Amino acid sequence: MALNSLGRTIPDSFAGSKLIPYQDPWSLMPHTLRATRPTKRIPHNDRKVLSGIREAIIASGLKDGMTISTHHSLRNGDYVLNQVIREIDALGIRDIRIASSSIHPVHAEIIPAIRKGVITSLECGVNGLIGELISKGELSCPVIVRSHGGRARALITGEVGVDVAFLAAPCCDDYGNFNGFSGPSACGSLGYAMVDAQHARTVVALTDNLVPYPAVPVGISQSVVDYVVAVESIGDPAKIVSTTTRITTDPIGLQIAKHAAQVIESSGLLKDGFSFQTGTGGISLAVAEQVRGLMRRGNIRGSFGCGGITGHFVDMLEEGLFQALFDVQCFDLKAVESIARNRNHQEISATMYANPFNSGAVVNRLDCVILSATEVDVDFNVNVNTESNGYLLHNTGGHSDTAAGAKLSIIVAPSIRGRLPIIRDEVTTITTPGETVDVVVTERGIAVNPRHPELKAELLRRRAPVKEIRELRDEIYELTGVPRPLEFEDDVVGLVEYRDGSIIDVIRRVKE
Amino acid sequence: MALNSLGRTIPDSFAGSKLIPYQDPWSLMPHTLRATRPTKRIPHNDRKVLSGIREAIIASGLKDGMTISTHHSLRNGDYVLNQVIREIDALGIRDIRIASSSIHPVHAEIIPAIRKGVITSLECGVNGLIGELISKGELSCPVIVRSHGGRARALITGEVGVDVAFLAAPCCDDYGNFNGFSGPSACGSLGYAMVDAQHARTVVALTDNLVPYPAVPVGISQSVVDYVVAVESIGDPAKIVSTTTRITTDPIGLQIAKHAAQVIESSGLLKDGFSFQTGTGGISLAVAEQVRGLMRRGNIRGSFGCGGITGHFVDMLEEGLFQALFDVQCFDLKAVESIARNRNHQEISATMYANPFNSGAVVNRLDCVILSATEVDVDFNVNVNTESNGYLLHNTGGHSDTAAGAKLSIIVAPSIRGRLPIIRDEVTTITTPGETVDVVVTERGIAVNPRHPELKAELLRRRAPVKEIRELRDEIYELTGVPRPLEFEDDVVGLVEYRDGSIIDVIRRVKE
Repeated sequence: MALNSLGRTIPDSFAGSKLIPYQDPWSLMPHTLRATRPTKRIPHNDRKVLSGIREAIIASGLKDGMTISTHHSLRNGDYVLNQVIREIDALGIRDIRIASSSIHPVHAEIIPAIRKGVITSLECGVNGLIGELISKGELSCPVIVRSHGGRARALITGEVGVDVAFLAAPCCDDYGNFNGFSGPSACGSLGYAMVDAQHARTVVALTDNLVPYPAVPVGISQSVVDYVVAVESIGDPAKIVSTTTRITTDPIGLQIAKHAAQVIESSGLLKDGFSFQTGTGGISLAVAEQVRGLMRRGNIRGSFGCGGITGHFVDMLEEGLFQALFDVQCFDLKAVESIARNRNHQEISATMYANPFNSGAVVNRLDCVILSATEVDVDFNVNVNTESNGYLLHNTGGHSDTAAGAKLSIIVAPSIRGRLPIIRDEVTTITTPGETVDVVVTERGIAVNPRHPELKAELLRRRAPVKEIRELRDEIYELTGVPRPLEFEDDVVGLVEYRDGSIIDVIRRVKE
Repeated sequence: MALNSLGRTIPDSFAGSKLIPYQDPWSLMPHTLRATRPTKRIPHNDRKVLSGIREAIIASGLKDGMTISTHHSLRNGDYVLNQVIREIDALGIRDIRIASSSIHPVHAEIIPAIRKGVITSLECGVNGLIGELISKGELSCPVIVRSHGGRARALITGEVGVDVAFLAAPCCDDYGNFNGFSGPSACGSLGYAMVDAQHARTVVALTDNLVPYPAVPVGISQSVVDYVVAVESIGDPAKIVSTTTRITTDPIGLQIAKHAAQVIESSGLLKDGFSFQTGTGGISLAVAEQVRGLMRRGNIRGSFGCGGITGHFVDMLEEGLFQALFDVQCFDLKAVESIARNRNHQEISATMYANPFNSGAVVNRLDCVILSATEVDVDFNVNVNTESNGYLLHNTGGHSDTAAGAKLSIIVAPSIRGRLPIIRDEVTTITTPGETVDVVVTERGIAVNPRHPELKAELLRRRAPVKEIRELRDEIYELTGVPRPLEFEDDVVGLVEYRDGSIIDVIRRVKE
């Protein structure tokens, strides 16, 4: 047991691995070589198309104790993981580790396989029921939550070795070239899958859209894909991307967005070359809309928009407000349509996006990121993984990556959600360290991290509603009451890994 | 010493490495892991732009005995290698191995550095004077010639470990993203450099076109580029790509092209889905023109055109005769302009193009390739590396890769060149084994490899001028006389490595 620098108690090891307690966002250096994998040669006239997932599992040599992965670009519409687990179970293979880029509520279908011992650990964050059951101790399956950049790091350093990657391939040819640009399950960018394609020992492409060779543009190349399987469907198009993402109409949300825009305006960053990321929530989009207005009025030509990309960013690109978009994941149909057509809308891998251990990720070049939170503490530490009931319900995504990279990271959140205070003395789980969080914006005011006195002074000069974060907390506590501390058992059921591989927090079993 | 399967005497070792004699095109299997390199972390607000090549060499940690590389997409217009060698020399660094993708006549400027011991070996083929001097024994510098696919293999398996890659970057930003699509030295595809960017321990981008961040589309990513150097010029645009590549007007060439087209027509391959590669020589282009006519008349929709791409292939793409182009290197301005614009004109890496040791290269999917030769022997073995005077003057390029991959590999050559017979009892050097060469076409007739009796029968049925290869040889010898055998010294000055890493032939010093 050790305390990390944020005061969280970190066990010495978890699920057999020794742990490094989080120290700070910058100083942990890699001392490893890039992970390797066997060099292959296939018969030059080989055929890669197999008749089904079961055949692919057999051909891949998957065995008890091995690790598999999928990507989550199909999000809650993904059909691949459930199908693969079903076949793994049917083949009697057990003790499988899942190292997907993310798991969504739709994957609750694999719960029986976890109970049965088909799946015995999760090297990936989970959105939804599986995480909840793990937090409650109702499902025994150690889980390690990583950020998008942290996952890329772990695959590339070999901390996580994927034996077989089963990659959903929306547009794929019979020799394994594929992209996400077309087909019934088009998802646009394949940014997460690119890392698996380079690092998994065996790569299987699953497609519901087998096209004549070659599938161009090539996102993931035949030269790294071993097998191709045509399946009826890899996903539910209605759940893969939204037809549209919507700006909030809620007055609280709009108030927050206005404050956030004021922060950006005051930061001095909003000038030619500005780079920007928002999430896809209604408030984030409202901030983007505000920024768009400011850029138009100021005749500002930005550098790039980044992250999970929405139609709003596509509009800003096409309007000339950004020179380029860096897209690790498309969030709506307009983004999918744009990435397939516009070469300034650049598909990027998760390592290029956010890996801290390479020669420089895109997040390093971000001026400003708008991020959400389930909770924020008075030291600006942010929780996005658990809710205030202690349940692990959300993945980290790019949260801690972009917060670390961006010059200005702004948390936007209503001050109260479900009668619970968002700003509080302590967060249930630390996802993102306060050292990388610059401003917290609620409808009740703006709290600036004391690391940025100039920004605070400028906001005050502009008569923005700046408050000390403890002042905001008190104001909120007056309405909600002081939250009752959650009670946890001693057992650690999961880890929250910081992007550099150190452990920033643990998930403990909630006392019922 | 051992005889390889083609009867060539191969020493046990060369320049300190144990050699594997060539056996056959297919059976040698890799038993290695993919090469690795240290994982890095840079300060997240680091700047990569250095003030000059010298600073980059110092920053890279280049030391005596190390290996550097450059790419040859700027061909005979490249200014990078000469500049780099000049600075390496000035810094007093010695015993450097060059593992560039190719060296051209313009690089004769480095000859004094070879004499001086700055450069002590070449892990790359050489076009022009350096090879000639090495063959003559006037320059002492062991050279290993590899095909494009073989070089990718050697870097990926780690047989060749590049310490520092100095990569010409026609359009580059200050964080190292670059592409070859624009700028004064635009070369189009960066297919060769992609392998170095993934495998060199340190990657330096040199550019004469530093653009605002981000340089999109991203061909080579910031996440693998360590330093950026702005130089006055990376190349001479007039020598990088042709303004146009020209179809031969020579009657002999046109006759050869007609015969070759007849072979393709007779092969049964010319149907929907047809895939095709030609070189850029006048005869090759004349064949392409013939094929274009046949495809038009037959209303054939091909699959892909491949290789070094010319405007002729761009026209065929745009006409709908091919669905896509796979481009490892652009040969003229029209190709450069097209690859920057048309997403069906796909930039591919050298490993995707031709590496025999991956999960499947593009050459494996080729129906037909048109190749040249300096000599062909009666067993269909082909020489492209040396001339009949024994001088090493040419690189292998994709010759042996495409011959192995394609269903139909056709050698086109005039029967006599400079009074010397092209078809002869023995070739000076074997580049490409006869087992992978299907047809030899000269203006005097068509010789079909006995492995393809059906094709021969079909050609005869169509009254094509089919001849036995020995018959052709005799006919040519009658005009040229039997060529006088070249005399060689015993010392081996270079190796011709087959794409799988075995040694298909050696270059011996020519007796003066």
